[in-house]
Amino acid sequence: MKEPFIDDPSLQVILKDIPTPFYLYDERGIRTAVRRLRSAFAWNPGFREYYAVKAAPTPGILQILKEEGCGCDCATETELLLAERCGFGSEDIVFSSNDTPASAYRKALETGAYINLDDISHIDMLDEIVDEWPKTVLLRYNPGGIFALGESKEGFQVMDTPEESKFGMTEAQIHAAVEALQKRGVECFGLHAFLASNTLSDEYYPVLAEKLFELAVRMHIKHGCPIPCIDLSGGIGIPYRPEQRENNIEAIGEGVRRAYEKILVPAGLTDTAIWTELGRYITGPHGALITRVIHRKETYRTYIGTDSGSQDLLRPAMYGAYHHITVMGKEKDPCDGLYDVTGSLCENNDKLAVQRPLPSPAVGDVLFIHDAGAHGHSMGFQYNGQLRCAEYLYCCDGSVRLLRRRETPDDLFATLVW
Amino acid sequence: MKEPFIDDPSLQVILKDIPTPFYLYDERGIRTAVRRLRSAFAWNPGFREYYAVKAAPTPGILQILKEEGCGCDCATETELLLAERCGFGSEDIVFSSNDTPASAYRKALETGAYINLDDISHIDMLDEIVDEWPKTVLLRYNPGGIFALGESKEGFQVMDTPEESKFGMTEAQIHAAVEALQKRGVECFGLHAFLASNTLSDEYYPVLAEKLFELAVRMHIKHGCPIPCIDLSGGIGIPYRPEQRENNIEAIGEGVRRAYEKILVPAGLTDTAIWTELGRYITGPHGALITRVIHRKETYRTYIGTDSGSQDLLRPAMYGAYHHITVMGKEKDPCDGLYDVTGSLCENNDKLAVQRPLPSPAVGDVLFIHDAGAHGHSMGFQYNGQLRCAEYLYCCDGSVRLLRRRETPDDLFATLVW
Repeated sequence: MKEPFIDDPSLQVILKDIPTPFYLYDERGIRTAVRRLRSAFAWNPGFREYYAVKAAPTPGILQILKEEGCGCDCATETELLLAERCGFGSEDIVFSSNDTPASAYRKALETGAYINLDDISHIDMLDEIVDEWPKTVLLRYNPGGIFALGESKEGFQVMDTPEESKFGMTEAQIHAAVEALQKRGVECFGLHAFLASNTLSDEYYPVLAEKLFELAVRMHIKHGCPIPCIDLSGGIGIPYRPEQRENNIEAIGEGVRRAYEKILVPAGLTDTAIWTELGRYITGPHGALITRVIHRKETYRTYIGTDSGSQDLLRPAMYGAYHHITVMGKEKDPCDGLYDVTGSLCENNDKLAVQRPLPSPAVGDVLFIHDAGAHGHSMGFQYNGQLRCAEYLYCCDGSVRLLRRRETPDDLFATLVW
Repeated sequence: MKEPFIDDPSLQVILKDIPTPFYLYDERGIRTAVRRLRSAFAWNPGFREYYAVKAAPTPGILQILKEEGCGCDCATETELLLAERCGFGSEDIVFSSNDTPASAYRKALETGAYINLDDISHIDMLDEIVDEWPKTVLLRYNPGGIFALGESKEGFQVMDTPEESKFGMTEAQIHAAVEALQKRGVECFGLHAFLASNTLSDEYYPVLAEKLFELAVRMHIKHGCPIPCIDLSGGIGIPYRPEQRENNIEAIGEGVRRAYEKILVPAGLTDTAIWTELGRYITGPHGALITRVIHRKETYRTYIGTDSGSQDLLRPAMYGAYHHITVMGKEKDPCDGLYDVTGSLCENNDKLAVQRPLPSPAVGDVLFIHDAGAHGHSMGFQYNGQLRCAEYLYCCDGSVRLLRRRETPDDLFATLVW
């Protein structure tokens, strides 16, 4: 049973002033998630979370994370601009890009962000851009093959295919990159890798850490370089489905600590900072799409038409992703049938849920669509001329604050030549 | 072998002034497509194409279609605003919406658009909005079941699942809607249905037409109502892959004519206009995404990094769609390997092509990505803070005209509260 982070009476108060649809983020939940994460890695003095900006590129959220001590992970020039404008300084940004345009590297160097190099060929490109190479550069590793953890304790197969991934370098390229960069004056190297997405296993991060730590030791021995940081990237998932078990972040932190003690410490790498980029883990469960039922249609199925849709939450259409839905005010009612919950796009994949058991949603009912706090609003589109909805923060003190206004037709038409 | 609509020397001239990436639309191709379509249906005096605005919601394109006699098909309030601002008048718009908000119906009635009713429950909703019901209303039909044409002559199975589609009404609901609307003063009824997407079979439209014509006859007999128009909607596809055969629009028009003569004429329905909504057919092949290779990366595969990506063309990531790619200047070179053509999103599905044979694309090469003239730019998103590219028209006289400028960070940040 998944429970909304706000109860129906409190939400109804908000709905008196704010028209649906909108995103609502739970300040308390976000702060608590960061604090648990930091506590789980408190054994590592240099630990830092670099929040993946793409998950929720909204100043009001990034500023909360900044207050909680997070840096941020940017992948594009505009994300760098956003981070800069939110007050993130030079040590606060990791620039993890791929297929990077020159202008984005220029901006990254200007902000002083840590460069996480995706490919060895970028060194030549950067030669034309840098005045002086930074002291520390991160290198993104791709071990290739198929990454499989086997059955986790939850009976869930963690598997992904790094060899089909466009990200990162082979180990041979990592070593060649170190040598090439040392010649250019780079002294220190970090490592970064991403092997699997949205994992629900406490073993993923420790196994990934082992791989990176072992490579770090080989780099340290081979090139004599300090390894000030290892960025475990993202990949820690959230239980989108009610039957799924939440990751135990304390167990994950402890697993990484054991790998650190086992591999890095004996090699003399005792000051390496662990970094993470846990966008989904930190904000995912603490954002919801709030939408109202505006139609109930009975044909070969029963369709619950909402005032939102794929424009606001594309993950179901894009990935077939599951987002749990609570019909507010009917939290304890039994499900009486299967429903397709739709938006109004002229596209049949515009469904927020397909054949979902729900407690008889009626016109006027408000739906709380769970776990939309990461890769939710940011992944929306304007297909069919749809206007993306507003974002609000449900503050710790119970008040509500606008973070992003709803789009208008003028926004949509801004780039047109008439 | 698919050929670009512009040759390399002519494109190179354009590239002197215009930075990649951008969409380029071929005015001549678009006009020719409409003229062929109109000619194929010239046997029907009332024939009209209502271009599906979502395919290319760009004034410069809609105005060409208007000049060629097309109306337009809108699904949302903003599409109505766009059509209105492009000069489409009351008889020029079909409003085919679903899960429709009240405000969109208000706008549709204000513009005088034909209402294509998606569900019987909308009648009560419209009662609260209309001052006077329009004389003609279209009804959207969903026959349910699985629609299958069997093997077409091209060995291609045309199949879709209307019973899983959120669109349209059952036949019983259509009859009930006619009765309810006749009581409200509606005199004439049109019909509309969409059974399968992107078909490559000259038989799809004639088979769909038969279904709609037979229903029209039953409606006419049962309710005595005139049937002034039958809208065959979209569904006529284009050969995205080089080995696919183009639809024969003349054969399709002739097939619909035969069904008309066989079913409608004997029932006395001799003045029914045939309408179509062939967005993909009309502009799809006549728009291309022009992008430049900025990286070539060798790991476990060879990755060709472009200055574009899913932000400009989401169909490959969303549907695994195939878009043919011509490496300009290497049109006749042999393919020397398999390549993943990528964008720079921090998302591994950001690939414009996967394991595609290409003639050794090099940094600086320009890629012509075919068949992006429908559901291309309009389906883009801003994930990872990506800015969507500009659109240009390659005019009949060889000149190039800006239709939509590239987005800026200010556009991206316009709705933010800092």
